[in-house]
Formats: sequence, structure tokens, C-alpha cells
Amino acid sequence: MRKQLLTSSLVLSFSLTWAQPKPLAGFDDASSRTQQQLESAYDGYLQAANIDSGIRIMSAHPHHVGSPGDKAVVDYIYNKLKGWGYDVQTETFYVPFPTPKERLLEMTSPTLWKAGLAEPALKEDATSGQTREQLPTYNCWSPDGDVTGQLVYVNYGIPEDYDRLERMGISVKGKIVIAKYGHSWRGIKPKVAQEHGAIGCLIYSDPRDDGYFQGDVYPKGAFKNEYGVQRGSIMDMPIYPGDPLTPGIGATKDAKRLQRAEALTLLKIPVLPISYHDAEPLLRALDGPVAPEEWRGAMPMTYHIGPGKTQVHLKLAFSWDTKPVTDVIARMPGSEFPDEWVIRGNHHDAWVNGAADPISGQSALLEEARAVSELRKTGWRPKRTIVYCAWDGEEPGLIGSTEWVEEHAEELQKKAVVYINSDENGRGFLEAGGSHALEPMMNEVARDVTDPEARISIADRRHSRELVNAADNNRLARALFQKKGFSLSALGSGSDYSPFLQHLGIPSFNLGFGGESSGGEYHSIYDSYDDFRRFKDPTFQYGVTLARTAGRVTLRMADAPVLPFDFRALYRTVNGYAGELISLVDQMREATALSNQVLMENHYAYAADPTVQLAPPAARSEVPYLNFSSLQNALTRLEKVTNRLSDSLSRAHLTGVRADLVNQSLYRAEQQLLSDNGLPRRPWYRHAIYAPGFYTGYGVKTLPGIREAIEQRSWKEAQEQIEVDAAVLQKFAGYLEAISF
Amino acid sequence: MRKQLLTSSLVLSFSLTWAQPKPLAGFDDASSRTQQQLESAYDGYLQAANIDSGIRIMSAHPHHVGSPGDKAVVDYIYNKLKGWGYDVQTETFYVPFPTPKERLLEMTSPTLWKAGLAEPALKEDATSGQTREQLPTYNCWSPDGDVTGQLVYVNYGIPEDYDRLERMGISVKGKIVIAKYGHSWRGIKPKVAQEHGAIGCLIYSDPRDDGYFQGDVYPKGAFKNEYGVQRGSIMDMPIYPGDPLTPGIGATKDAKRLQRAEALTLLKIPVLPISYHDAEPLLRALDGPVAPEEWRGAMPMTYHIGPGKTQVHLKLAFSWDTKPVTDVIARMPGSEFPDEWVIRGNHHDAWVNGAADPISGQSALLEEARAVSELRKTGWRPKRTIVYCAWDGEEPGLIGSTEWVEEHAEELQKKAVVYINSDENGRGFLEAGGSHALEPMMNEVARDVTDPEARISIADRRHSRELVNAADNNRLARALFQKKGFSLSALGSGSDYSPFLQHLGIPSFNLGFGGESSGGEYHSIYDSYDDFRRFKDPTFQYGVTLARTAGRVTLRMADAPVLPFDFRALYRTVNGYAGELISLVDQMREATALSNQVLMENHYAYAADPTVQLAPPAARSEVPYLNFSSLQNALTRLEKVTNRLSDSLSRAHLTGVRADLVNQSLYRAEQQLLSDNGLPRRPWYRHAIYAPGFYTGYGVKTLPGIREAIEQRSWKEAQEQIEVDAAVLQKFAGYLEAISF
Repeated sequence: MRKQLLTSSLVLSFSLTWAQPKPLAGFDDASSRTQQQLESAYDGYLQAANIDSGIRIMSAHPHHVGSPGDKAVVDYIYNKLKGWGYDVQTETFYVPFPTPKERLLEMTSPTLWKAGLAEPALKEDATSGQTREQLPTYNCWSPDGDVTGQLVYVNYGIPEDYDRLERMGISVKGKIVIAKYGHSWRGIKPKVAQEHGAIGCLIYSDPRDDGYFQGDVYPKGAFKNEYGVQRGSIMDMPIYPGDPLTPGIGATKDAKRLQRAEALTLLKIPVLPISYHDAEPLLRALDGPVAPEEWRGAMPMTYHIGPGKTQVHLKLAFSWDTKPVTDVIARMPGSEFPDEWVIRGNHHDAWVNGAADPISGQSALLEEARAVSELRKTGWRPKRTIVYCAWDGEEPGLIGSTEWVEEHAEELQKKAVVYINSDENGRGFLEAGGSHALEPMMNEVARDVTDPEARISIADRRHSRELVNAADNNRLARALFQKKGFSLSALGSGSDYSPFLQHLGIPSFNLGFGGESSGGEYHSIYDSYDDFRRFKDPTFQYGVTLARTAGRVTLRMADAPVLPFDFRALYRTVNGYAGELISLVDQMREATALSNQVLMENHYAYAADPTVQLAPPAARSEVPYLNFSSLQNALTRLEKVTNRLSDSLSRAHLTGVRADLVNQSLYRAEQQLLSDNGLPRRPWYRHAIYAPGFYTGYGVKTLPGIREAIEQRSWKEAQEQIEVDAAVLQKFAGYLEAISF
Repeated sequence: MRKQLLTSSLVLSFSLTWAQPKPLAGFDDASSRTQQQLESAYDGYLQAANIDSGIRIMSAHPHHVGSPGDKAVVDYIYNKLKGWGYDVQTETFYVPFPTPKERLLEMTSPTLWKAGLAEPALKEDATSGQTREQLPTYNCWSPDGDVTGQLVYVNYGIPEDYDRLERMGISVKGKIVIAKYGHSWRGIKPKVAQEHGAIGCLIYSDPRDDGYFQGDVYPKGAFKNEYGVQRGSIMDMPIYPGDPLTPGIGATKDAKRLQRAEALTLLKIPVLPISYHDAEPLLRALDGPVAPEEWRGAMPMTYHIGPGKTQVHLKLAFSWDTKPVTDVIARMPGSEFPDEWVIRGNHHDAWVNGAADPISGQSALLEEARAVSELRKTGWRPKRTIVYCAWDGEEPGLIGSTEWVEEHAEELQKKAVVYINSDENGRGFLEAGGSHALEPMMNEVARDVTDPEARISIADRRHSRELVNAADNNRLARALFQKKGFSLSALGSGSDYSPFLQHLGIPSFNLGFGGESSGGEYHSIYDSYDDFRRFKDPTFQYGVTLARTAGRVTLRMADAPVLPFDFRALYRTVNGYAGELISLVDQMREATALSNQVLMENHYAYAADPTVQLAPPAARSEVPYLNFSSLQNALTRLEKVTNRLSDSLSRAHLTGVRADLVNQSLYRAEQQLLSDNGLPRRPWYRHAIYAPGFYTGYGVKTLPGIREAIEQRSWKEAQEQIEVDAAVLQKFAGYLEAISF
């Protein structure tokens, strides 16, 4: 009896919750119900079959910048959007786009050998034989070059690898390095090699990372076969993305351009990506010390570092022709606030066929646009203008989006409410990054979208995975059980949100699914429809799920009476970052003191194996105490003002002009987080909270001015950046104070 | 000026310290000085050239149990010791020693293929071609068998691997498993396979673990080439070591013997070790799921688990002839206490030539014995009897030592002061395990021996390495800087100390050097003089250092007026183990609750990839609170009494009969740590503090009765064992109380 009673009361309490849901953030009870009905209708229009055919059609031919395939995809997208009643325009920029004229890689000593540099067609992959249309394997923006030198294996080629090489007494000066893909964005590898004096750089995919070690290789399985090569840009995007010749301005026909030699984002040494088939003879020929354990890959050999008898000749020449980069921009005007833009984008250009990257995201975006056009047929109009964007030139360096953002910066800073990005999409779990003031809103969206495999919300499924992964960690599992909702990850770079967020301060999201569809096809000819259908999202249901998710964000941001910004979430996040930095400095201070003591007391020398050449690490300067008080005081003020603003908004019943003004203040608030001078040595990046790492490339650095100065042990700059960020946060707090009521 | 003054005062304080050293533990000022002079003289007699020639001669031919080479080594050792004036005897036991008559391994499906099962001779290795004298590659004590079945890859073949297989829905019942060497003693793999219903077991050496992944392979480098095979015993030694047919008694000619089928230490399924050359075609042929990442090795393939089309036929037949096992026992009688024995031992039998294992240790032991005989020529006599032992039959299962210990148990429990073991020795760092009441004494010895590479004490060099390895861990580095001296590791099994310590409670040490001489030669034909001289200890200086270290322990234990047992160190250690167990139960309780919650809330199902067959782990019973109070009370008493005893000993000036009685009480104290019934299901192991793990084989379990019950989640037995160990510690404390004064 007792048990039954208990059950009934549980059912009752569930029903009560169900009967009286909290309204959606930014909506009142009535408009919330309307919105949810709208979203149900929206879901009903989404068709997996359309996403399937979109991917099939748009990935049918290689469609890199300037190719006939690129033009065909632009036309396809344009015509689709036009057909659905959007106000569609294309906008074209003109940029240099290097493509290979000559690629030669050979070993000249101890044996003669020439690399194949080719990905073969496979009968199991229908588009893999489109050889004449394919770009050969190369790294875009490598300069022309003809170099010969000893070869040195540098692991992933990131700064800490060079620290280790230095301890081993190995210099890469005047030599050619071979680095593995992974553990940093690819462009970091030649940049760091160049900083250390290397004259050329090879980048290969070790089978440990995305080949047979991970699983069966293509076409049997999804992972990289011995010939697969990752193409990709090595432009120094952590300085600025977009056209190297027009930093900060749109690359229109008559824009003032730099000379190529003046472009800070172009490296000086030739770079070539190769397969593990081509890397193996080179690595096998290396002598010198055995690579440290964590440097070793999965090829059947002892990994040595060189340098020694192994000499390599690398000759590269490119055509540097100017090519058009054509974005497609489609608008559905807002009925109440036409000058408030909710922007949704995904790039359309690919390195080859790009079924996954970017077409899986592009096809979902088109299906969203189609479903939204269906809604309009029912009489609904978005309150704010919805803008769908298909970017060109993302692969060589976020060019289409960056040039568009630079060209329309002033207008965007006035009108852009939010930018919602997607790119490659796969099977699995929601991956969501973005502006933290929108974290509560994103949690509501994720609560309202059902996962097609687990039939629970995508938020809950994410949570389940976190719990399962925490199985061996009591502390983490405990914290996860207590946690309410998920955190948005902070955005670094790697897709088209970067100019919106980091250059203009426009609130942004990056959304996608993954975790169950890994493979080795990335930027190779095998990123094809055949591969996608077998290994990525065979039923296209995660394409539908992305459309539901990004579409909900778009519709809520377009229709919310009060825009659902909650700056308390931003405060909590930034306060957490500040706490991390304060701890980091303390931790580094102790680590420095301890490691210097180990060094000074000669323990490295005593513990050293005399048969192994490995010098102690260099002594490090002591870590001073930094003054974080200005930052802490700014955060204290921010906490108060964000609470107050939140109170104001929850009490208010906003209508008409007043609502419009408040909303404009809310969506423009993130622009207050830009600093006037941007980040040191890279003023294009102006956001004080989020930036791609100077030495990680895609990987984010939060409070980047301070964090990178600390990591680089530039204590004076760290203190300066604390003051910069404190001033930015004070400015931001003052702005929020001014809009509280 | 100031700096100079400072320097002078430092020199002064150093000189003062130097002028007034603390006497050695167990010695007074005067005898301490005499002892140190003796040790200096001893050091002076030790010659690297003798260790070199000893290794060369004793490893010149294969010398496994029952072979002509074994007899030649016995004769060599006997004659050497005899020539140096020792009272030498041999003592022979008679045991079955299986050697292969037939070995067949073939794949019968999907393709036909036959394993080579041979290690080729190399021109760079002079003894590798002694094919007629070599034992073929095999696992000793495998039963005869002829089985055919599907093959399943089981990673390292330890219990947690089978948990994972179960989650994948894979049973090994009726199948043949293939496991990697490593992560447990080899005998655990077939034992656990048999427990799970497998009908045969292959064990191979993956190149990830000691082949090309680790470094260049033999003969270019030290690591295992594709044909190298690790021979070795798979007797279930965690039950009892020694002759399987005479547990607990010496295997003399007329001893009462079990039938082979009755022997608990003999497995029922055929087992064969193979090279990675022979493993590769088998593993390549496997289908079924991809192995989890941590299961994958370094061969160039995707590791699959099976079972499937891959079928294997394994046929093994052995000669089970009885063979002699001959120990050499040499005595130098004590001048004052001839019935107190300081025993120093190392085995002499090898799987093949055994230059490293065991001859590097055996040759150092002989050089110690020679140097001690030189001391005697100067008129010195040890106060206590020194006994040098060269054990036969260690490789098949610690047979020579175990049978000798069982045969002489009563006498040993009266007379044995300490047993000092060594085995394979290499270049690098002191590795010292043993009875913790002798930890302070071992620290003094290690302080007094100089490392031949670093020219600091072997204790300090060890400490330096620990500090260097802690470089990235502030908490560990801080603790290490504060730590005084090093901890002895606890002894599990794997060499001849086991019967002394764990069966009889005789205080024991295991000493050796290593860490700079790893390779892949272990138990293969390539463990040769040529290999040793190139990769292990080229100058034989670590042989000398082992002789200095073990010789000092021997001489101090032989001459100390008061034996240097410090039971406070034992108390601290055991108290630490008890604390670990108390935390372990709490940690398991929380982990169980959390993981059951993850399970019950369905998170595994929600997070699962539907394309991967992986069931959630089974729910686990809740962890009760155990009552540790009896153990804690016993430890409280032990703390008091060990302090009191230490006070007594430091105040006392012991002479004559009184000293003799106190010393006898001290060295017999560890026998009080034996429990009457031994460990559950393995009564041969009687030490309450140290035992090899039932499921680790060599790896130690401290407070094993309690710990293994907890790890196996046998809560009732855990509580019982707490009471058993508490009673043992109370008995021990009472004993120490009785000898305090």
C-alpha cells in the first residue's frame, strides 16, 4: 500500500510540473505556449530525406574555392533559398587562393626515394575517382619553396616538443621537420618550426591518431587508410583570419591590398601534408635518439628523431591566382524589428567533396530555412529578421565570413542580435559553445530537443555521457550529479563564428553533434557521400536534430519579447576563469620553485643515465605575485549588476519602444567586452573573454590577454592585461548598470 | 667578505658532522668505526673483472634444471666457494620438470598457417646458436593438451579484462585465448582464462611492451625482435611455490608425494608463449569488435577481439621426468654466535644462458663471498655464521629455495637472522624491498654505498630520480623534499625470498639495481653474455655496487652487537597499510553508490552508441561499513611498545648471554607476524603483512588477508581477516613487550 501511495504522489507531482511549465526564457506564459506550438510545427516540417539529398547533391563534385563545383553549390543554395521565398543575394570577395603547380618530396640520402603524394580512387567510393576536379594534397598558403635538408621528427610540432628537443641537444635550424597532425591546429606546426629556424615542414597523419590504431581503415572502416591525407590551411589565423591581403576590411574588388610579402599571416617556409604511406620510409630512415614514449606512433618501427644521414628535398610551387569567394545571404524580414538580425550560418566550400565538412551542416541549415519558410506559409512572421548565410572560403581561412563581417561591421554591430554557426555534423552528442549570457537559453533548447537514438533530451543524453565517463572518479561523479544543466564551451576558432564573436563582439553559438562518428576522412577525397552514409549519420537523423536545435535557437531569438540574455551566467563563467588564472599563477609559482630546487640541487644530473643525452630543463624565472585586485573588484561589481539587471528583467513587462530599446541594449552588451586595442600583437582579436590560442590555433584561451601572458611567463604583460580586462569588465558593468531599471 | 665567512662556517659544520658521525645502527661508537674500516677493506677486494668473468663462464651454456649446463654451474660455484675456504655442501631435491616433446600451433581457419615457434641464432650473439642445448620456447607446467577452438584476444588476460569482455557479450568458454605478456605475472593469464572456461592459452610479447615500440630491437638494440619469446613458469605460485608434489615439505628422495593430478598449483589447460612474429597472423585474422583503446598494441593493424572465423589448433606434449634440483650452500661459521645465520642467496639456474637472469646476481654474490674470504685472511671472523646459497630450480617455481626452506624449517626458524636475496642485476637505481623493521638499517647501508655513475650515494641517487620524476606534481615534489630516507618496498614474489619471508617469517631483503638497462631479452636465448655486455652493465660496476650493498647488509647483520631491528619503522608502515585499507573501503563505498546510481538512472543505456555492443557494467553490492577497531587498537598498542622497545635498546649496553637472548628475540620477532592458518585458500602463505597477490602473481598485497577480501568484495571474509590480523598484531605486540626491558 505504502509503495503505491508513494508512486501516486510522484505521478501527481510530475503532472503538476507538466501542467505549469516555466515559460521559456524571454517569453511570458502566453507567448511561451505560442512559441512551443510554433516549434512543434517547425519540427514537423523537417525531413531527413531532404538532408540526405542535400548532402548527396552538394557533395557530388569537389567544390573548393574558385572551382566549377563551388559555383554549382552556390547556385544550388541560391536557387533553393530563393524558391522558398527568401530575399537572397550573393556577395563576392576577391582573394588570392594558392593551388599547387608542382609538388615534389624525395629522400636524397641515405637512399633515394620519391613520395607518391596521391590518394587513390576506391571502387567503394563513387566520387573518389573525380581526379581531374580534385585539389591535390597540399597545405594552402604554403609559400613556393625548394629546400633540401636533414630531416628531424618533432612529434606534434608544438612548443613543448621543441623544449624537449633542446634538452636532447637537437636543433632544427636549417633542417626540415616532420610533425604529426594533432594536438594543435595544423598551422601551429609550421609556424613554430619556422620560429625555430626550420626551412621546411612536413605534416603527416600517424595511424595512431586516425588510422588503423583507432579502427578499421577506409573503405572497410571509417579510419584513414595508408594513402589518406589531410589537406588544410596553414594561414596564421591566430593573428587574423580572412584574406591575408585585406586585414580588417572587406576584400572587395577595389579594396586597398597589402603586398603578399607584407601579410603577417603568411609563413615563409614550404609545408606539405603527407600520408603515413609516404611518411613511413622517411621515419624509418631516421637515426639519432629514440623518440620519447609519448612521441611514438603506431607504425611498426622504433621512432627515432634524427637528424643524421636522412636528407629530404621538398619542392613546391603554387598558382597564386585571385579567386572569387561567394557568400549566399538570404533574409526573411522581421515583422516587428526588421533591423534586429538573427543570423544563422554554415560554410559551403570544401577541400574536396566535403560531404561531412561542411555539407552535413549546410544541408541541415537549408532544411531549417525550408521549414521556416513553411511556417511563414501558415501566416507566421518572425518578429526579428532571420538571415541565412552560406559562406564560401572557410577552408582556406574563414574568408567568406570574415570579409563579409569586415565589410558590414558597422551595420552588424547595430543589428546583429546573435550569430548561430554550424559546420560538420555527425552522430552522437550535442556539442555547443558560445556566449555565456545565452547559456541558460541554450539549456532550455537542449532540454526541448529529443535525441534520435536515446529518446531523451539532447541535454540529458550529454549529461548521461558525462556521468558514464566519470565512472572511475568519485569527485567528478559527485559534482556531475549535483550539476544543473550543462556549460557552454568557450569558443576558440576553426569555423565562421570567429569574426562575429571575436572581432565584433556579436553574441555567437557554434552547434553540432558528434562523438559516435569519428573517422579519418577529414579534408581528404574520402569525405564523401558514400563515407558519410556508412559512417557518419546513416539515417540523417542527427542532421534533423541539428536542424531542430539550431532552428529553435533561431526561432526563439527571432521571436522572444525580451531577448533571453542572462548575464549572471556570463558573470559566473568569467569569475570561474579568473579563479583559474589566480590558481594557475600560484600553481606555477610553486612548480617553478620546486623544479628550480630540483635543478639547483643537481638532481637532474644525479638521476641522468650517462648513456642518454638529455640535459636538464632550463632554470625558470621565479613567478611573482600578480595583483588581481582590479579584476576581482570588477567582478564583484559585475556580480551585483548582473543580479540587479536580472531582477529588473524578471519584474518588467516590456512593450513597444521600451522593449526595443532594452533588447537592443541587451544584444549589443557583448560588444562592451571588446577591448580598444585588441590582444597584444594581434589587434584584430578584440574580445576580452574568448580567443583562439596563439599557440593552439583552434583551441580557446579564455581571458586570453592575461592567460597567454601568464603561460608565456610575461609577467609585466600579464599585469597590464589584468588591468585591461578589469577596465573592460568595469565598462561592461557600467553599461549593464545603465540599462537596469 | 661575508660570502667567505659563510662558506667557512659551512665547511666547519660539515667537518663537525663528519668528525662525529652517528654510529651505525646496532653498533656503538667503537664497533661502528671498526665495522666501517672492515667495509672499506671489503670494498677494496671487489673486482669488476671477476664479476665479468663469472657472468661469462656461468652463462656460457644453457643451464636449466637437469641440464649438463646446470651441473657445470653447480660445480663451478661449489669449487669457487670451496677454494675460498667455505664449508660447502650441495643439497639435491627431486622434482618433476616438464620439457617439451611436441609443440604445434596452427591456424586452421580462415586460412591455414603454422607457427614457427623458434628463436633464430644471430651472428652478433655468440651463444644464441647453441640450439641443441637450449630449451625450446614453452611455458613450464603447461599440461599436455590437444585443443582446437575459436581464438579470442583478451588483452593482458587479467580479471578486469574479462569484465570488459562480458560487457561486450564475449565468452571464452570452449575457446582458446591469446593474451599479452605484462600487467600481471604470466601464470595469472592461463589461471584466469581457465576460470572463465577457456580450453587453451597463448601468451605473446606485443612490440608495444618490450619490442620495437620501446626501442631498437636485438641485435641492433636491446629490445625484443620479432622472434624473441619469453619462456617461463605458469605454476600457480600464489597458492604455494616449490615442487607441486610436496607442498610444505622438502622434495627429498623419499618424501611423500602427491599425484600430479592432486597438485593445486598445476593448471589444466595447455599454454604456449609465442613471439610477435607468430602472433601477428593470428591477431590479423581476428574479426569481431575492435579492441578498446587501452588493449591495443604496436603491431600495424586494427586489434580485434574475435571470436569468429579464426580457429586455432594447439597441441602440446611434455616429458614429465623427475630431475635433480641442486642447491649449493656455503658456510663461514660465526665466531661468537655460530647458531645465528645471516643468509645470502641468489639462484643459479636459468631458462637458457641467463647472463642477466640470474647470473648477474649470482656472479656478484660469488664476488662478495670471495671478498669476505679475503677479509678472513686478515684475521677477521664474522660474529654470526654467514651462509651463501646458490639456488637451483628458481625458474620453474622457486624450487631449490622452497624445498630447502621446507626441509630445514625448524632449524631456520631458530637460527636465521635474515635472508638477503638478489637475482638479475642491471644499471641504474637501487631497488630494495624487504622487512620494514630493517628499513632504517637499509637506509644507512644505501647512504654508505656510492653510485658508480653519479658518484653520490645510491640512496641519494634514488632520491634524485624520485624528485625528477615528480617534476610535474607539486604535491609529490613537496612531499619528497620533506622525506627522510627511502621506503623499502613490500615483497610480493618472483624470487627466492618468498619461502623465507612468507612461509617462515624470516626477515628478508631483495636487492638489485635497474632502471637504465631495460630490454627484451628476459627468458629468451638472447639473455646472453653478449647482450649483457652491450646493454645491461657494460663495465660490471653495478655488479660491484650490488656486491657492496648486499655485502654491507651481510657484514653488518653478521657483526652488529645489537641486531639493527627497528620495529617503529614496521609499525609506521603497517599503520600506513591499515590507513590505506580504511580509505579504500570508504572510497569503494562511494564509488559503488555512485556507479550504481549511474546504472540505475539508466545513464549507460542513454549514453550508449547503438551501433556498438557494450552492455552496462553489472550492478555491485553496496559496500558495508567494516569494523576496523580491533586492528586500530592493536596498532595503538604496537606504536607504544615499539617506542618502548626502541628506548630500551638505545639505553642498553648489552653484552654476553643477555645480548644473545635479546638478539634472538629480535630476529625471531617477525615470526610472530605469521598467522596460524595462513591466508584463506592458501595456507602456505602465513605472513600477515606481505604476500604475492592471488590475481597479480608477483605483485605484492600488503595486509593481504584483508586487502584481497576487500578487493574481491568478500565483506564477511574481510571482517574475519581484520580480526585475524588484529590478533596477529596483538600477539606481536605482546611478544615485543615481553622482550622490552
